[in-house]
Amino acid sequence: MSIHEYIETLCTDTKKASPSMARKSEIQKNAILCDIADAIEKNEAEIIEANILDLEAADKNGVPKTMLDRLKLTPERIKGIADAVREIVALPDPIGKGEVYTNRDGLVIKKVRAPLGVVAIIFEARPNVTYDAAALCIKSGNAVILRGGKEAINSNRCAVEIMQSVLIKHGVDKNAVSLVDDITREGTTELMQMRGYVDVIIPRGGKGLIQSVVQNSKIPCIETGAGNCHLYVEADADTEMAVSVALNAKCSRPSVCNAIETLLVHRDVAEKFLPMLESAMKEKGVELRACPDSAKYLKEFTPATNEDFETEYNDFILAVKTVSDIDEAIAHINSYGTGHSEAIITSSLTLSQKFQTEVDAAAVYVNASTRFTDGGVFGLGAEIGISTQKLHARGPMGLVEMTTTKYLINGNGQIR
Amino acid sequence: MSIHEYIETLCTDTKKASPSMARKSEIQKNAILCDIADAIEKNEAEIIEANILDLEAADKNGVPKTMLDRLKLTPERIKGIADAVREIVALPDPIGKGEVYTNRDGLVIKKVRAPLGVVAIIFEARPNVTYDAAALCIKSGNAVILRGGKEAINSNRCAVEIMQSVLIKHGVDKNAVSLVDDITREGTTELMQMRGYVDVIIPRGGKGLIQSVVQNSKIPCIETGAGNCHLYVEADADTEMAVSVALNAKCSRPSVCNAIETLLVHRDVAEKFLPMLESAMKEKGVELRACPDSAKYLKEFTPATNEDFETEYNDFILAVKTVSDIDEAIAHINSYGTGHSEAIITSSLTLSQKFQTEVDAAAVYVNASTRFTDGGVFGLGAEIGISTQKLHARGPMGLVEMTTTKYLINGNGQIR
Repeated sequence: MSIHEYIETLCTDTKKASPSMARKSEIQKNAILCDIADAIEKNEAEIIEANILDLEAADKNGVPKTMLDRLKLTPERIKGIADAVREIVALPDPIGKGEVYTNRDGLVIKKVRAPLGVVAIIFEARPNVTYDAAALCIKSGNAVILRGGKEAINSNRCAVEIMQSVLIKHGVDKNAVSLVDDITREGTTELMQMRGYVDVIIPRGGKGLIQSVVQNSKIPCIETGAGNCHLYVEADADTEMAVSVALNAKCSRPSVCNAIETLLVHRDVAEKFLPMLESAMKEKGVELRACPDSAKYLKEFTPATNEDFETEYNDFILAVKTVSDIDEAIAHINSYGTGHSEAIITSSLTLSQKFQTEVDAAAVYVNASTRFTDGGVFGLGAEIGISTQKLHARGPMGLVEMTTTKYLINGNGQIR
Repeated sequence: MSIHEYIETLCTDTKKASPSMARKSEIQKNAILCDIADAIEKNEAEIIEANILDLEAADKNGVPKTMLDRLKLTPERIKGIADAVREIVALPDPIGKGEVYTNRDGLVIKKVRAPLGVVAIIFEARPNVTYDAAALCIKSGNAVILRGGKEAINSNRCAVEIMQSVLIKHGVDKNAVSLVDDITREGTTELMQMRGYVDVIIPRGGKGLIQSVVQNSKIPCIETGAGNCHLYVEADADTEMAVSVALNAKCSRPSVCNAIETLLVHRDVAEKFLPMLESAMKEKGVELRACPDSAKYLKEFTPATNEDFETEYNDFILAVKTVSDIDEAIAHINSYGTGHSEAIITSSLTLSQKFQTEVDAAAVYVNASTRFTDGGVFGLGAEIGISTQKLHARGPMGLVEMTTTKYLINGNGQIR
């Protein structure tokens, strides 16, 4: 069977399975998720065994240590995965909720939430995402096609097998949770052509993966996760607050997409603020990459290039640039940012409103850390990713964003 | 200047103009729309003059009569266009509306509606759409790039000139309403590549145009308007109601997307229902294309081929097919339908619910005509189109569907 035939068969089977998932009630879906959580814990030994195969192969292939760490499953992590599935049980089911009205002709028009159908998720070698993404799809009544990083293939096979056996027990066609059991790039390329079978494709991962899907997919796609975020310190800022927020936004978890990569500072406060920033960042081991104007107030730094302002470091590195006013800051952000999370520190009401109106991003903060951009914090519960596009979903995507709407109209013979 | 450079410049200019549109308040946007409506009426002579150029050229080029009729503007139609713009004034402005909550840490999190930014609309040679689409974009705070059918180029130039002069008067960058003043296919192809400049592209028109945009656009796209709609008559149907709904759904306006193209009938009621249907349809001059089983009960018909079931006739033609049960009807609809509007005539509550759950379409009717699928009927006011996709918008797209959301978060130094 060619890759094309394999992917087409897989997508056909998943589409065929999707109604059996869509028809489950909230109580039935919660029962499935509880059983999956229990099965994850019960099959700990099997999961670790499969994971060791992946770790050994990755080690042999010289996979970097940070990636090995993300790939690795421990009993503690497996317990964490099961608990995360149980947290999804507690979230309200969006399906069937909506609005209803009766028009003057007696026609009852309901607009209700319905599953998208088949969701394809392309992600990196993180076995926890396999369970998490599948659980969110199950709770929202969707069938899912999972295509994880090739380094996790054994862990993913094991995960899908465990979940499918629970689906069968509950009378759901097991193909409602499918794995692309293929580690070639062609598999992904073929998957992106499957318009008509797959209703939405969500890439989760690095810039290269996301751009490739966005540029080449024939299936409607949701761009997630690219976060070149900024903190702008206005001339009138509370500088201690600015240092505290900058430290948190850069250092609390540099590898995540809501961490900042560039700090912009108004030139009138640079002389006071930048030395404070430097000493705080030095303690955390952060390397500063400075523009010529900000360099004047720093002791240790690397000169910043234009490339620095384009880079999502995901590391203990911070680009620093002075600007002459808020307009320059906003222009820089709208030109270099990825539309994720942006923040200003200011005491001016007018400037705070200007910043929130004119900065074009999913989340725009005044006097708070960008690190708050998160489905949990924003009240959505678990998230499938953070959308940086404007269509369908913007910002953290929870269960509601995994659904579409459907009009249901009931009459007694009305014509127009 | 090459076509590529021309389109890139046009998109850059429109993107640059978009904040000046986005920042206008509801009152300001309504004032612009009122002035546009007045300007349309004041410039009637100029509009008709430009339209005559188009009509003469189209006539010379042998454009079909139905298209000539859509292209033609009369004083009465111009008045209608102005009135349609005034109706948009009366619609509520979605921008800035949303939800707000304060989390336990005192962070105030608002999720509000914001303009999409730049919307590109590709449509056929219907000059009324030029005004209508621009007015909906203005009301929702969006800049718009209009690419109308080449036969209407003079009418569209005139329309955009009239609207731009109103924008200038109100301090809006005139490029917030832009026209692709190019009648080649390359212009459209280039436009579809302008990701980063254009936030969403909406094709309005025939199947070929929509498929070309959906398949080739690098910009997020909304598929609209393809309507291969069905009416299914169950064994227990009130046959008089079924005839009345079928007549309305087929004949009240066959050229629109919510008209039916195929009638499915349960074999147990075919003998009673089909002769009733035939005599009613005959009076309206409808040609029937029948499957072998239904042909048994008809006097005059053409045998239906598989192609008939795939065709959106937009004409006084109806395909007819018998099915052995509701499952066969649903399978036929989900396989041949375009996900637009589908209807069942039945007296069974169970079957009506099954049909509404299992048919995969934007609007699913019980005992009512598919002709009701419309922004006005569904309470959205004017519509930019009817989406047949599941992402972002499904069914009639009103002003809310022309917006995205934005999280605005205010704190006093909160870190995570």
